[in-house]
Amino acid sequence: MPDLLVDLETPQNEAPLYQRIADSIRADVLAGRLRRGERVPSTRTLAKELDVNRNTVAQAYEQLVAEGFLEGKHGSGTYVARELPQANFNVKSGLRTQQKLRRVALANSPVPPAFYHRVLQAENPAPVPGVDIDMRLGAPDISAFPLRQWRRIVGNQLLVARRDRMNYGSAYGLQELREQIAAYLGRARGIDCGYRNVLVTSGSQQGLWLAASLLVGEGDAVMVEDPGYLGARSIFSALGARQLPIPVDDAGADAAVVARNLAEGLQPKLLHLTPSHQYPTGVTLSAARRMEMLELAAEHGFMIVEDDYDSEFRYEGRPVRALAGIDGADSVIYVGSFSKVMYPSLRVGYVVAPEWLIEAMVGLRWHIDFMPPMLESAALAQFIEEGHFERHLRRMRTLYAEKRAAFNDILQQNLPAALPQPVPAGGMKMMLNVPSHLTRQDAYQKAMEAGVRVYDQSACYFEQEQAPNRLTIGFTALPIEKVKEAAHRLVRAWT
Amino acid sequence: MPDLLVDLETPQNEAPLYQRIADSIRADVLAGRLRRGERVPSTRTLAKELDVNRNTVAQAYEQLVAEGFLEGKHGSGTYVARELPQANFNVKSGLRTQQKLRRVALANSPVPPAFYHRVLQAENPAPVPGVDIDMRLGAPDISAFPLRQWRRIVGNQLLVARRDRMNYGSAYGLQELREQIAAYLGRARGIDCGYRNVLVTSGSQQGLWLAASLLVGEGDAVMVEDPGYLGARSIFSALGARQLPIPVDDAGADAAVVARNLAEGLQPKLLHLTPSHQYPTGVTLSAARRMEMLELAAEHGFMIVEDDYDSEFRYEGRPVRALAGIDGADSVIYVGSFSKVMYPSLRVGYVVAPEWLIEAMVGLRWHIDFMPPMLESAALAQFIEEGHFERHLRRMRTLYAEKRAAFNDILQQNLPAALPQPVPAGGMKMMLNVPSHLTRQDAYQKAMEAGVRVYDQSACYFEQEQAPNRLTIGFTALPIEKVKEAAHRLVRAWT
Repeated sequence: MPDLLVDLETPQNEAPLYQRIADSIRADVLAGRLRRGERVPSTRTLAKELDVNRNTVAQAYEQLVAEGFLEGKHGSGTYVARELPQANFNVKSGLRTQQKLRRVALANSPVPPAFYHRVLQAENPAPVPGVDIDMRLGAPDISAFPLRQWRRIVGNQLLVARRDRMNYGSAYGLQELREQIAAYLGRARGIDCGYRNVLVTSGSQQGLWLAASLLVGEGDAVMVEDPGYLGARSIFSALGARQLPIPVDDAGADAAVVARNLAEGLQPKLLHLTPSHQYPTGVTLSAARRMEMLELAAEHGFMIVEDDYDSEFRYEGRPVRALAGIDGADSVIYVGSFSKVMYPSLRVGYVVAPEWLIEAMVGLRWHIDFMPPMLESAALAQFIEEGHFERHLRRMRTLYAEKRAAFNDILQQNLPAALPQPVPAGGMKMMLNVPSHLTRQDAYQKAMEAGVRVYDQSACYFEQEQAPNRLTIGFTALPIEKVKEAAHRLVRAWT
Repeated sequence: MPDLLVDLETPQNEAPLYQRIADSIRADVLAGRLRRGERVPSTRTLAKELDVNRNTVAQAYEQLVAEGFLEGKHGSGTYVARELPQANFNVKSGLRTQQKLRRVALANSPVPPAFYHRVLQAENPAPVPGVDIDMRLGAPDISAFPLRQWRRIVGNQLLVARRDRMNYGSAYGLQELREQIAAYLGRARGIDCGYRNVLVTSGSQQGLWLAASLLVGEGDAVMVEDPGYLGARSIFSALGARQLPIPVDDAGADAAVVARNLAEGLQPKLLHLTPSHQYPTGVTLSAARRMEMLELAAEHGFMIVEDDYDSEFRYEGRPVRALAGIDGADSVIYVGSFSKVMYPSLRVGYVVAPEWLIEAMVGLRWHIDFMPPMLESAALAQFIEEGHFERHLRRMRTLYAEKRAAFNDILQQNLPAALPQPVPAGGMKMMLNVPSHLTRQDAYQKAMEAGVRVYDQSACYFEQEQAPNRLTIGFTALPIEKVKEAAHRLVRAWT
C-alpha cells in the first residue's frame, strides 16, 4: 500500500495522523485499489511500514470499522468489508441528467450569476487608477456612526444573554424590537400601529420579497414607478408578474395613470411606491396624489407597497407623513430598513402591514429561514429605547444637510443647470442634469477622468434609451471636503 | 375646530405639540370635516384657542403646507388645499377584492398561521403546572457556552469594524468565514472543498430552501426519509414536489428502495438524507448504503442533500465521514448549521455544493435578502480561527456524552426495554420505546404527570398511525442532575 506514504507526506494536510491513514485506506477502497473481502495488513505490519506508532494505525482501523469500510474477523485480522458495493464513481451515465439539473437551477435562479457579479462589482467597485472620489449611492457615513455606544449595547446584550434569547425564537422577530419599531414609526412617520402589525425582516428586501411572494402570482398585474427601484422590479419579474409602468413627474408617480389603468379594467395586485423620495429621482409624492393613490387602492382592493427606504433623511421641513399613516382602509404595506440609518450590513428591516398579512408572511418567513438573528434585534431595541437611535438620526440629518448644501452651493454658483429643479428635499443621492452639450456617456467619462465616480441609473427606466440625460451622485458617505472637491471637479469636467 | 383639543389631551401621545396639532388638522381634512378650499383659523387665533405658543401653530401649518394639505395664499391666510381629491375612505367596493387578496396570501403561505403558532408554542412551550423538567429536542446547553470569549470577539469585531464590513457586502457571505468553514469541514468531516464551494446562509433552513427552490419544481419527484425531517418536507410540499418515502431501518435510509424507485423509472431531482444521525431515529447510515446512495446519484444524475444538522455530536468512535467527503461525482449538497454547536439564535448556517449550484444559489439569495449580517460572520470566523470553536465542540461532546451515559445507565438498569437497540452513537436526542403495556398517548401523559416533558415525533412518519410506539427526549440542554432525575421519573412513570 505505497499510496499511503504519498498521502502522509501531503504537507497541507492538517488532520491527525490516524485520520490521514484512514483517509488513504478509504480512498483505496473507494477507488477499487483494495477489493472487497481483501485482507489489510496487521496494525503491527502497517505501523512498521509507515514508521508510526501501532496505536495510530489501530485508531485508523477502528475508525474505518465504525464507518463500515473494514471489518474485523475475530482472531483472523482485518478485511475490507464484503458488503460494500463495487466502487464505480466514474459513471458517466448520470452526467447528462446532472447537466440538465444545472440548467434547471440556473433557469430557476431569478438573478443569473453574471448579473449578480455585476451587482457585486457595482457595490464594491474595483479601484480605477486616478478615481479617488466615489460618490457611492445610498451609503451612510459610517465614520459618524456611534460605534462605541453600539459596541457597549451589543456587549451588554451578550452579558445579560438569557437562555430564551439564545435558543430558537419567534419568526415575527423579538417582541421588544417590534414594540420599539411601532413606537418609533408613530413618533417619526405618524403611523398608528402596534407590535402585532410589525414583522422584523432581514433587511427591506426580505420584506418586499415576502409580501410580493404571497400576493403576486404568474401573470398578475403589478404597478411600478417608471423610473423605479430595480430591487423590487427583479422580485416582480421573478414572480412572473406583468409590470405596468406608472410615469413619475415632479409630483411623484402619476395617480391619473393608475386611475386610467384601473378604468381600463387592469386590476393590479400591488402598486409599488417610494413616496418619500422617489427612487431614483428623489421627488416627493404630493399630498393630493397620496390621497388619490389611497382612495384608488381602497376602492379597487389592491395593496400599496410603501417602500420608505430612506425617508428619515429630509432636509427641508419635517418628513412627510407616510401613506401608512393616512390610510384608513388597510391598504398599505409599509417596508422600512435600518440599513441607511444604522449601517447596511446590520441586515435589519421591517414590514408594517394589516395583521392578516403579517400572519401570512410569518409562515413564509419561518419556512425560508426560521427567524432573524437575535443579537442585532436585542441590541437595536435597546439602542432605540435609550434614545441613541433618534439622536444619531438627528445628527446624521444635520451632517448630510451640510454636505448636500455644500455640494449644491458649488453647483448653484458654477453650473446651476446641472441641479434638478426643484432640488429634492430629502434622500441620500441626487440626479444631476448632464449639460446639454454632453451625452450621458461623455459626462460619465469626463467625471471619471476627473477622478470622480458618478453613477448611471438609466437602467431604472423602462425605456432605457429614453432615459433623460442625467447621472446620479451620492453625497452622504464622503467627508464634506471630498464632497466639495467632487463638486468643483464635476463643474470643471462638465463646463 | 374643537377636535383639536381632544387630540391634545390624549395622554399617550408622545409626538411634539406642533405635530399633534398638524395630525389633528390632517385628520379633519381626511375625514372631510374640513372642506377643500376652506379657510383655517390664523395662527394667532388658533394659538389663543389652544393656549399654546403661536410659533407652535405656525410650525404645524408649515408642515401641512409642505405635505400639500394646506396652502398659504399670499396676504390672505391659510386654506385647505383645493386640489385634494374628496376624501372618501369608507369605500366598501374594494373590500371584497381585498378579501380575495387575503385568501390568496394565506393560500400562498406555505405554513398556515395556525400551524406556525403551534410551532412557536412547541418551541417555547407554555409552562404546565408540575412539569419542571423539559427534555427539549435539539437544544444545546447554553449555560456551557463560552459567552465571555464570544463577547470579547464580537466586541473586538466592532472595535476593528472597517467600512467595508459595515456596508453592503457579498451575498456569498464573508470570505474569511467561508474559508474557515471549508477548512473546518476538511478537518472534521473529511470534506475537500474550497471557499468557492461554500455559501454562508441564515441557518441551515435557508440552505435547504435555496437548494430545493432551484432544483425542484411542481410535480417533480423528491425522495425523503420516512420517518424524516418535517422542515425539509414542508419545503418540498410548498414547491409542489411529489415526495417518495424511503423507509429507514437500523442501517439508515434503505438504498434498495431508492434503487427500486429508479428502476421503475422514477427520476427524482433530490434525495434528502440525514446520514450522521437520521432524523428523528438517530440511526447512522451504513458505509455500504452511503456508497450505494452516491453511486445511484452519480448514475442517475440526481443530487443528494446531506443534511448534517448535528453530526458534530458523536459519542462512540469518531464522526463518520460525510457523504460530501466521499462523493466523486459532484452529487452532494452538504447543508450544515452552527445552531447546535454555537446557539440557535445566531442564525448562521452554510451550504457546500458544486460551484455551479453555489452560483445559482447566490443569485436567489441576493434576491431574497441580499446578504447575511456581518457581525456574526466576522466574529464566527475569528472564533473558529483562534481555535475556540473546536475547543468548545470538544467540551460539549464530553458534556453531552456524560449526560447521555447518565440517562442511559438509569434506563439500562431499570427499564432496559425503553432503550433503542442499538443506542444511537450520536446526536442530541433519543427515541425511547414505550413499554408495551402503554400506548404512546398514555406514556406521554404519565411522563407529563411525573413532571417530565417528552416529545411525540410520530408526525415525522408518512403514515402517522403506523408510527412505532416511541417518544423522544433531548438530553443535552438540562444539567446532568436534571437528566438523571428525568430518567428516574420516567422509569417510575412507565414501570
